Amino acid sequence: MAHTIRAIAIALGADAAGDLTLTVTHAAEPQAAGADALALAMSPKYAEHLPKGQALAALVWPGADWQALGLKAAIFAPRGRLAMAGLSAIFDPGPDIAPGIHPMTVIDPSAQIGDGAAIGPFVTIGRGVVIGPRARIAAHASIAEGARIGADALILHGARIMARVVIGDRFICHPGAVIGADGFSFVTPEKSGVEEIRETLGERSEIRAQAWTRIHSLGSVSIGDDVEIGANSCIDRGTIRDTSIGSGTKLDNLVHIGHNVQVGRDCLLCGQVGIAGSSRIGDRVVLAGQCGVNDNIFVGDDVIAGGGTKIFTNAPAGRVLLGYPAIKMETHVELQKAQRRLPRLAARVAELEKTVMQRSQDTE
Amino acid sequence: MAHTIRAIAIALGADAAGDLTLTVTHAAEPQAAGADALALAMSPKYAEHLPKGQALAALVWPGADWQALGLKAAIFAPRGRLAMAGLSAIFDPGPDIAPGIHPMTVIDPSAQIGDGAAIGPFVTIGRGVVIGPRARIAAHASIAEGARIGADALILHGARIMARVVIGDRFICHPGAVIGADGFSFVTPEKSGVEEIRETLGERSEIRAQAWTRIHSLGSVSIGDDVEIGANSCIDRGTIRDTSIGSGTKLDNLVHIGHNVQVGRDCLLCGQVGIAGSSRIGDRVVLAGQCGVNDNIFVGDDVIAGGGTKIFTNAPAGRVLLGYPAIKMETHVELQKAQRRLPRLAARVAELEKTVMQRSQDTE
Amino acid sequence: MAHTIRAIAIALGADAAGDLTLTVTHAAEPQAAGADALALAMSPKYAEHLPKGQALAALVWPGADWQALGLKAAIFAPRGRLAMAGLSAIFDPGPDIAPGIHPMTVIDPSAQIGDGAAIGPFVTIGRGVVIGPRARIAAHASIAEGARIGADALILHGARIMARVVIGDRFICHPGAVIGADGFSFVTPEKSGVEEIRETLGERSEIRAQAWTRIHSLGSVSIGDDVEIGANSCIDRGTIRDTSIGSGTKLDNLVHIGHNVQVGRDCLLCGQVGIAGSSRIGDRVVLAGQCGVNDNIFVGDDVIAGGGTKIFTNAPAGRVLLGYPAIKMETHVELQKAQRRLPRLAARVAELEKTVMQRSQDTE
Repeated sequence: MAHTIRAIAIALGADAAGDLTLTVTHAAEPQAAGADALALAMSPKYAEHLPKGQALAALVWPGADWQALGLKAAIFAPRGRLAMAGLSAIFDPGPDIAPGIHPMTVIDPSAQIGDGAAIGPFVTIGRGVVIGPRARIAAHASIAEGARIGADALILHGARIMARVVIGDRFICHPGAVIGADGFSFVTPEKSGVEEIRETLGERSEIRAQAWTRIHSLGSVSIGDDVEIGANSCIDRGTIRDTSIGSGTKLDNLVHIGHNVQVGRDCLLCGQVGIAGSSRIGDRVVLAGQCGVNDNIFVGDDVIAGGGTKIFTNAPAGRVLLGYPAIKMETHVELQKAQRRLPRLAARVAELEKTVMQRSQDTE
Repeated sequence: MAHTIRAIAIALGADAAGDLTLTVTHAAEPQAAGADALALAMSPKYAEHLPKGQALAALVWPGADWQALGLKAAIFAPRGRLAMAGLSAIFDPGPDIAPGIHPMTVIDPSAQIGDGAAIGPFVTIGRGVVIGPRARIAAHASIAEGARIGADALILHGARIMARVVIGDRFICHPGAVIGADGFSFVTPEKSGVEEIRETLGERSEIRAQAWTRIHSLGSVSIGDDVEIGANSCIDRGTIRDTSIGSGTKLDNLVHIGHNVQVGRDCLLCGQVGIAGSSRIGDRVVLAGQCGVNDNIFVGDDVIAGGGTKIFTNAPAGRVLLGYPAIKMETHVELQKAQRRLPRLAARVAELEKTVMQRSQDTE
Repeated sequence: MAHTIRAIAIALGADAAGDLTLTVTHAAEPQAAGADALALAMSPKYAEHLPKGQALAALVWPGADWQALGLKAAIFAPRGRLAMAGLSAIFDPGPDIAPGIHPMTVIDPSAQIGDGAAIGPFVTIGRGVVIGPRARIAAHASIAEGARIGADALILHGARIMARVVIGDRFICHPGAVIGADGFSFVTPEKSGVEEIRETLGERSEIRAQAWTRIHSLGSVSIGDDVEIGANSCIDRGTIRDTSIGSGTKLDNLVHIGHNVQVGRDCLLCGQVGIAGSSRIGDRVVLAGQCGVNDNIFVGDDVIAGGGTKIFTNAPAGRVLLGYPAIKMETHVELQKAQRRLPRLAARVAELEKTVMQRSQDTE
């Protein structure tokens, strides 16, 4: 779909210059841009590739000499990535889900679906489900009994929204995500080896045969507004209370959220992060890829953890973490350096021992 | 559904006191409990929140003065989590799958399905499949040709049971789990770089271009009784023999079990655990979240590993492990402390060197 | 299906001896082999189990005295695993997908599907999709609008090929894989805490409330020939350009590939590997299970990384890596040893301090 430079600039709230009636159909990197593309040249580094393409219009930095860059029109972006966000929303065609409800669906007559829904083939919607207006639900998704979802939901292929899950507005759920599977909670008739280890950090009085009895999950999952859940991620239901995800929080792909976990608002949990049962994550926490959080701990507001960090104990608000086990990022960097020098340190100690012992013999 | 206190106490095998004809419909935390809830007050810490709610009955610890707590009835739980397990089974409504076989399914006429089945919409069941009595199979699940599943199976939305997989009784499979995908097994015409590295731990004679030839998986997966598989977990089929999971073992979400792996009985493999091909895991092994097990190794009975532990070599029975690479948990704790003191140690060595050198000059 | 020893030897390009008209229906380990099985006895270690089974024919090593092993026929395999690959291809029955297009599918009339397709029930194929000849697509798979897939594709149960994904010939996609979900890309109106941390490695000037604005993914995913993607793995689409996977590359289960990532040719990415956004992986790279690659870095050709390695910075071609953070495998092994000796080293330093101080007092 074609947009004028003027319309795009207005949508972005940005200044523009040149022929504002020019139209573009998509965004492209400068070297790959045809005459119908808006080139992404938000810094001089990118702009130098403009001559390799055919772009007539570009997104450029404030103050760029767009005419010298050979352009007929330009939009000025003070913060490139933010303009990119707006631009990507304008040009995203969105998934192809036909308006209305596909005939090959199984929707319980008691379900209430808001106006303007687009529901694809092979979708199932259970008893008593309530879905707000303008929902888009792609093929093969299942929404189980009693789930309640707000306005403007986008639920993609094969996502599973399980029983009695409650979700706010503008929810985005990527393919294969499972929201509300049972928690992983088992108990042995007598105290288990795991319980002993937790108390002693490594010792067991004796090893006993033990079989596991299941604790069913009676709670569900509560999710705020503006939440996005990545492909094949899993959020387990709570044991009694709901597991909860705060408004504005985004989960990447293959993330695991255990039962009873409470995640705050505006967090980013990147690919393959795992949060064990009953832990609480504050607001605006950012966990990079493959981070892990132990069960039953608290990670304070504004904590940021680098890739693969394993958080075993409570983390105070604002802490920046790295490592296994997690420590302050700056301490980790310092310890890494010390560790690299460790073989050299051992050699120096051996040398000292030799010197001191030699001297000891000399004085005897 | 309402239950009397008497009926619940009998089901739990627990003592009860007070008005045993009182009925409750669900369990709740003390502060959130209405008059129709059984409050969970298994310790004085929880019980102190009873006045904030309206509970008339509660699950309490043995010897609790239930009347002083303002209750009309009480059930006594010597081991709270175990009583919780029984209670959760009583109150779990289970997934909503209508009895019988939904008309929008594709079931091969040669498949044998036991009495009392409940099979949801869009399920596929292949040629020669045998499923025991009282199976509940939710929407979108696929059960491929030749699979055999025991009695009382619960297979949830979109789970994939692949060809010729054999599973015992009381199987629980959460949404999106894939049981019996092909193993990840490839070979190069000549010895590959990986094979050389395994022998030398770090050196290669030369780097060669190499393309991968696929080894197909001719084995399948064998699973015992009382096994539970978490959402989006994957268990690969064996190359010749079956990959196997012992009775009573439970897998959490997003767990990966490679081809030919043998997992023993009554193990717990927590979220995002990965076991590489051809390794053997003993009985009653507990691997916390994000643990990894190298290929072709053996982890003994009753091993317990803390979160994120990476096991590279055989682990003897009963060992408690932590770390990357895995070492005894108590050694890990000790090494961690030593590492934190490492920068200070380096400073002390430098100081010693100065002292010794100074002395050396003094005596010259 | 039965094959003669002669036919198998020809298919493997291998020498054979004895009664070449003997037929076998499957491969088996020596001890489990019946008279209708080809025993896998590629080394004397395996061959010694032949008497426990009933095999008349076996795959043996070059020069093996097959008659002394009690066999009536033998095939000689100079490289056992390679012969195993050929053999497994001969005996693999493949998934049971009936030829033709199942009536319970939803296929857009504009889609072009090549000759010889086998498409199972509940498959959806979107507008403008182009699929090459001989595709096999199992139940519940979705192929979204504009996707283009080459010849001989095998797409298994519930796999999701999202919009405009382009894939070469001989593609194998295991159940539940998601190819082309949106990237995980968000921006804050002002500079975020994460951006500051990246610059300072641990310090933030102040902590601010921040909400995330979504950057939509306008690119897609491009995949070469002979690529295989494991169960429940996820490959995100690119922001502007496509995320790309080179020919001959294989992904195991539960692998995460972030947006804009470029993976080269003939790589092996094992179970639960994660590659963060915009990183480039060279050719023939092998990442063992649970490895992680930071965003925006480059991993050179022929890099091999051991299990759980977390690569934070660029890795030169040919480097063999291990650890968190990744270092050369041989350095890691050396550092591990030094760390195990660290408590002992600290004791030696304390001893030295005592000696030196004592001497200091003696000389005063």
